[in-house]
Amino acid sequence: MVATMTGFKTIGIFTSLLNRDTILVGRQIEEILAKKGCRVLFDKSFENSKFSNKFKTTSSEYLKKNSDLIIAIGGDGAMLSCSRAYGSRGVPILGVNLGKLGFLTDIAPDELTSRLLEVIDGNYIKDQRFFLKSTVKGSRRASLALNEVVIHSGAIAQMIEYDLYIDEVFVFRQKADGLIICSPTGSTAYSLSAGGPIIHPNLDVISIIPMLPQSLTSSPLVVSAESRIKVILSNNANRVHLSFDSHNSIKLSGKNEINICKSNSMLEFIHPSDHDFYDGCRNKLGWSSAIINLNN
Amino acid sequence: MVATMTGFKTIGIFTSLLNRDTILVGRQIEEILAKKGCRVLFDKSFENSKFSNKFKTTSSEYLKKNSDLIIAIGGDGAMLSCSRAYGSRGVPILGVNLGKLGFLTDIAPDELTSRLLEVIDGNYIKDQRFFLKSTVKGSRRASLALNEVVIHSGAIAQMIEYDLYIDEVFVFRQKADGLIICSPTGSTAYSLSAGGPIIHPNLDVISIIPMLPQSLTSSPLVVSAESRIKVILSNNANRVHLSFDSHNSIKLSGKNEINICKSNSMLEFIHPSDHDFYDGCRNKLGWSSAIINLNN
Amino acid sequence: MVATMTGFKTIGIFTSLLNRDTILVGRQIEEILAKKGCRVLFDKSFENSKFSNKFKTTSSEYLKKNSDLIIAIGGDGAMLSCSRAYGSRGVPILGVNLGKLGFLTDIAPDELTSRLLEVIDGNYIKDQRFFLKSTVKGSRRASLALNEVVIHSGAIAQMIEYDLYIDEVFVFRQKADGLIICSPTGSTAYSLSAGGPIIHPNLDVISIIPMLPQSLTSSPLVVSAESRIKVILSNNANRVHLSFDSHNSIKLSGKNEINICKSNSMLEFIHPSDHDFYDGCRNKLGWSSAIINLNN
Amino acid sequence: MVATMTGFKTIGIFTSLLNRDTILVGRQIEEILAKKGCRVLFDKSFENSKFSNKFKTTSSEYLKKNSDLIIAIGGDGAMLSCSRAYGSRGVPILGVNLGKLGFLTDIAPDELTSRLLEVIDGNYIKDQRFFLKSTVKGSRRASLALNEVVIHSGAIAQMIEYDLYIDEVFVFRQKADGLIICSPTGSTAYSLSAGGPIIHPNLDVISIIPMLPQSLTSSPLVVSAESRIKVILSNNANRVHLSFDSHNSIKLSGKNEINICKSNSMLEFIHPSDHDFYDGCRNKLGWSSAIINLNN
Repeated sequence: MVATMTGFKTIGIFTSLLNRDTILVGRQIEEILAKKGCRVLFDKSFENSKFSNKFKTTSSEYLKKNSDLIIAIGGDGAMLSCSRAYGSRGVPILGVNLGKLGFLTDIAPDELTSRLLEVIDGNYIKDQRFFLKSTVKGSRRASLALNEVVIHSGAIAQMIEYDLYIDEVFVFRQKADGLIICSPTGSTAYSLSAGGPIIHPNLDVISIIPMLPQSLTSSPLVVSAESRIKVILSNNANRVHLSFDSHNSIKLSGKNEINICKSNSMLEFIHPSDHDFYDGCRNKLGWSSAIINLNN
Repeated sequence: MVATMTGFKTIGIFTSLLNRDTILVGRQIEEILAKKGCRVLFDKSFENSKFSNKFKTTSSEYLKKNSDLIIAIGGDGAMLSCSRAYGSRGVPILGVNLGKLGFLTDIAPDELTSRLLEVIDGNYIKDQRFFLKSTVKGSRRASLALNEVVIHSGAIAQMIEYDLYIDEVFVFRQKADGLIICSPTGSTAYSLSAGGPIIHPNLDVISIIPMLPQSLTSSPLVVSAESRIKVILSNNANRVHLSFDSHNSIKLSGKNEINICKSNSMLEFIHPSDHDFYDGCRNKLGWSSAIINLNN
Repeated sequence: MVATMTGFKTIGIFTSLLNRDTILVGRQIEEILAKKGCRVLFDKSFENSKFSNKFKTTSSEYLKKNSDLIIAIGGDGAMLSCSRAYGSRGVPILGVNLGKLGFLTDIAPDELTSRLLEVIDGNYIKDQRFFLKSTVKGSRRASLALNEVVIHSGAIAQMIEYDLYIDEVFVFRQKADGLIICSPTGSTAYSLSAGGPIIHPNLDVISIIPMLPQSLTSSPLVVSAESRIKVILSNNANRVHLSFDSHNSIKLSGKNEINICKSNSMLEFIHPSDHDFYDGCRNKLGWSSAIINLNN
Repeated sequence: MVATMTGFKTIGIFTSLLNRDTILVGRQIEEILAKKGCRVLFDKSFENSKFSNKFKTTSSEYLKKNSDLIIAIGGDGAMLSCSRAYGSRGVPILGVNLGKLGFLTDIAPDELTSRLLEVIDGNYIKDQRFFLKSTVKGSRRASLALNEVVIHSGAIAQMIEYDLYIDEVFVFRQKADGLIICSPTGSTAYSLSAGGPIIHPNLDVISIIPMLPQSLTSSPLVVSAESRIKVILSNNANRVHLSFDSHNSIKLSGKNEINICKSNSMLEFIHPSDHDFYDGCRNKLGWSSAIINLNN
């Protein structure tokens, strides 16, 4: 799994939130990489008016075409934004976390130089993730989500009704606040609040989790990522919203058919060679804390 | 608990959905009651254009002032609608269910005559329920809910943040899709989908249930119905919706304070003397079905 | 709620685990109380062979008869042990926690003097709790539990079948690993792991929570503490265990009837006047931790 | 997936419970198969003293060596028993259900002739399942489970503590009533009661589900079936029980290491060509019932 050669010559730098910290870390990365003879390209996200330090930024198109690696500064949110912007084009992404260790980012600022050099020198792990691709019948537009697709009534406390089909086989008719269709990457995000299982990121599966289902017999369902998932909305009185990573959304009305499958375009995350998925879980989910001692 | 005298002289009849069945049952009830010398008033819900059988209806104001009892024809939904229309004025309500036995209605059409006569003759149980009263700080308007108040982000898969106070004591800050504040009557409705407990209707308690909370350590909470519940919304980017029995709703924006308490106006349901709350649970929740035999 | 006079003249001291810390705190309490002119009685739990500091202890009978207050040193576990030993006799109990703040104990060692004096001077809150009393049909022996009664198959992964009756009304037949019958005090203990709600300690209710029920439609149920709860075991192949606060247990075989109700004997906890139930929840349940920031 | 040739010449017949119905169906199968020129071998489970109809049975060894197919009469329980007895030796198993449609059996008695002939004529689906293989460090004995391995405190309401490692990587330390390690086949059985997800049987994954965990942040976990799962028991005061399909169990004491992985020996179920996993789910889990209409 550890690559021994490296082709990281031109490296893009991305952030989801420009502030003093990300600017500082951006400058540090630029310096470290320059010493190694790498060319550095700053994403438009480093354009700023508020701050005095000016970055020379390049267009997103140029960055996409020329980068061998993109470094996302921030946290899991920055990784997600960066993945949406660049990930589906096959450019690998490395995360630098500014807060506490995340699920996706694992270089902390205080070990920036050593960890970055490790990766540049070819000592890293590749971690392939897939996107979920959604299309609505009758429309050509496909939407990508890295975490999850949510089908939901926009209106408050209004259930929607739908039929689920997997590979053209009827699974169930359900009434619920909504339905989450989730990749392994998304299994530690929104899905977890709805009672979904944590799924190891290397699995080729999709999980389907009802949100506040009317029937108590509904359980989360895990199916092959090669499945074609079809949700046929009943003729709901209200509009139905379709959301991708809680980022984009589409409004539908009437009886609609939504098709969801694994996208062909894969995403590649880069991690230092001691990356540990469960370490992220322990940190983010509170598993690391001492076992809660209840009443006795 | 069984009343031995009766003062049911003038009786209102209400339905939530006018169709051939409700019309037929309405006529039957009118006939039964007329024989007993009762005066019958039909609610505006019996006004119709589609159907040939004409009812002489009275104004809601007149019905409220003059009825000793109101009979709601339909199911639990009809009971809720009728409760909203008449319940907070102290007029007792009796339910006739057209479908299967509900939580609130317990006279089936095939036992209409005998059961109705039983009740009219004074052989019945009184079942007092309370409304939840909500006010938003800065507004004079109070909204009533019999089942639950839901505080919710209208937008899809967007969490809201709020602080909960009970009797002016801070309880927790939480981030979730929403928060359900629920009466015992509502404990078998929407709350149940969110993992809330079933609460016997004679208890003077309120339950508070987070919807898809971001933190997995959040549990449903049961407190005294005499508690003053205060939810202070953080300065959420999105509008926050406040919904009452999934019927009315209010949109709020910015930092708001919502106060919820038990209303002074009580609601009185009337049941035949063999009414059984758990019978409704078994029927509606599938407890009545044979125990599911899993794999082995 | 804050008492202004005090009758705490003779004070017993109890611990659940004798070690250097509890000995030290025991000595400190003795000193503080002696200065106030109180008489101090050490429970048999302060008898020791391992440690050099000798305490003069009194019999449990003498302590019960003569104490106006008992101080339990340890944590919630010490409070439970002390409650079992002395609580049902009407002697109030105050807790000193040696670890972090518990649900029941709220005097920390570093504020021992000031808090203890406050209480002795009459500045305290009374917090009444009830015990659950269980009897098996055909036996005269009654067992008390402060947290919960658990009916359980002793054998691994073996379900038991039972019928639940409340006030002689049939509720359900269920097949599960076990059934928890729980006081509000116990609602933050074992019940919580089984998905039970948190119930404010001042409520007069009992919660009933199935453990890994075979049917997914089973929900926790909250009923009046005045209810008579009856569980009739089906003729299970295996023995059935009945456990009280995970402390004592009884083995039953064949078709048995278990009756559980609120005990007449109440337990009184004493707290400093700023006691806050929700503060304990936040500390013990991790509500105090920053809201977990999931993937995005 | 549909095989077009058949090699089912010698066919074993097995039941888990000998009674009038299984005897009748056994005789019917014998007759149908005899007409097709198949040789029929009755398992020892058809030996009987109570019933007058005598079967000529063969030894389990002989049956194992000579059968091309084994038909299990009963339900999912019979399939499990038959799988334990014959499945790991590579003989395919077909199920005839006497009660309602199960997850594993899908020939009903009233369509016995047509369905059986279909299968014998080569019109069937192969459905491969895997066993979980467990070993305790220091012992050579390996135990197989088709549904799940459960690690559990035998004593009532006593938690056990353990560390989980996956592929030698530490995952978490946990305190719970027990831990379920579950195959996709087992995901619709005991695991479901503990909140585990339903996993499509064709997936090569294992799910790990805590039972009543002390910490509320514990979620079900889904990992690759190629993982080596290691559970190291802390030095628990009580004995720990290890159970396989709730059928066999082992008692352990002290600090032990349990290793669980996918077994090399696969199990092959045979289904008529219209077999539908979700149909079984709808029937057994109550998905087939009309959507429960809650309060409103």
